[in-house]
Amino acid sequence: MIFDILTLFPGMFTGPFDESIINRAKDKQLIEISLHNIRDWSTDRHQTADDSPYGGGAGMVMKAPPVAACIESVKALHPDSTVVFTSPQGRRLTNSVALDLSKRPGLIILCGRYEGIDERIRSIYAEDDISLGDFVLSGGEIAAMAIVDSVSRLIPGVLGSDESAKLDSFCDGLLEHPHYTRPPSFNNLEVPGELLSGNHELIRRWRRKESLRKTKSLRPDLLLNVALNREDLILLKEIELEESCEM
Amino acid sequence: MIFDILTLFPGMFTGPFDESIINRAKDKQLIEISLHNIRDWSTDRHQTADDSPYGGGAGMVMKAPPVAACIESVKALHPDSTVVFTSPQGRRLTNSVALDLSKRPGLIILCGRYEGIDERIRSIYAEDDISLGDFVLSGGEIAAMAIVDSVSRLIPGVLGSDESAKLDSFCDGLLEHPHYTRPPSFNNLEVPGELLSGNHELIRRWRRKESLRKTKSLRPDLLLNVALNREDLILLKEIELEESCEM
Repeated sequence: MIFDILTLFPGMFTGPFDESIINRAKDKQLIEISLHNIRDWSTDRHQTADDSPYGGGAGMVMKAPPVAACIESVKALHPDSTVVFTSPQGRRLTNSVALDLSKRPGLIILCGRYEGIDERIRSIYAEDDISLGDFVLSGGEIAAMAIVDSVSRLIPGVLGSDESAKLDSFCDGLLEHPHYTRPPSFNNLEVPGELLSGNHELIRRWRRKESLRKTKSLRPDLLLNVALNREDLILLKEIELEESCEM
Repeated sequence: MIFDILTLFPGMFTGPFDESIINRAKDKQLIEISLHNIRDWSTDRHQTADDSPYGGGAGMVMKAPPVAACIESVKALHPDSTVVFTSPQGRRLTNSVALDLSKRPGLIILCGRYEGIDERIRSIYAEDDISLGDFVLSGGEIAAMAIVDSVSRLIPGVLGSDESAKLDSFCDGLLEHPHYTRPPSFNNLEVPGELLSGNHELIRRWRRKESLRKTKSLRPDLLLNVALNREDLILLKEIELEESCEM
């Protein structure tokens, strides 16, 4: 997977891709990340990439010509890549959107800044538009990092063990069960006995139950979209009984 | 506002806070960002911060003792700060959550990694838990960047002009209208005449109408939560008429 990131602030990406999983994926050549400074495509002496908005008002708008030239030059190198905008009006990034994106040959991610990009760039080039949620960031750079990270994790071979990806929150539609590691007792809080039992079936059942319990308590909406099996329904009934006893 | 970020990968934050708005806010001492390496609080020779999960399975879990020691040391410096976890099970980051967080004296943001953090840390320390959405990141670091950026923008004085923050998407509950800047014609696409008219009232009305049009088309759910005035209703009726003519 080739990620091309088009930005006015390539320096922001100095650290985020140089650690841990993403760095290893780059080393293994499973992913390739190239940064492109939009300012390099501006043609005037001062490398201007923004200008005041037509109609007046506060803030600056990213000019169409340098952005277009930058996209064209990257598209020429990677014609099969999808041009992705990052903006609050895009479709919400979810695990299934990330899975969809992970199957493309490449992504060209355009990071907006200031008040936004000249709208004509959107009409000509946008093939997809991704939003992290209903909040405002200073630019698309942090959204681009989230896309690269969440998409890369789903590319086969990137995670050390395939199981890790499968069991993560949302991959089976539920929140993850709690995790514990040594020491067995910490601040008078003990590790649940089931996890110390050595009984694989008991551990599996405990984890499924706690996963259902977290989801029911914190994100009951997720339960509506999950195919619950017979055991799940029994576990949910047990959880309800326990809750009614606590009251 | 004081942001303390607790992470196993402080190197990830080298670039993201050193550009543009966040960098200026640091220079103006409106915000202060401190990075704390959790590994510095592990007590063994190898600075181990993770261990295998009780009950077996793939992945590693962040050990309670170094995380607790790191939180305690930061809390001692900033006792009024709120300890914020970043995880997919948290409450969703939105503009109003960011506004809520921007009013706290400080945030201590704990970045999880690997399979997660020993659950006992959550029960002892978590005061808030923020999620970027229903997707999985390799760690909480990118979520922490999104929190710092979206929250900082809402702190008075951080943005150059107060207007910029107010008009951004979501601040008035609607998506933003499109932006245009020079040149007036680009790839045979013209800037809408209203924006070139010099008539402030015409421009204001056009922007409101296009903001409503985008929202209606891309995020109709947002319209349900906005107090629409008489003009908005007229503009929406005009949009509906235009749409029916196009068909």
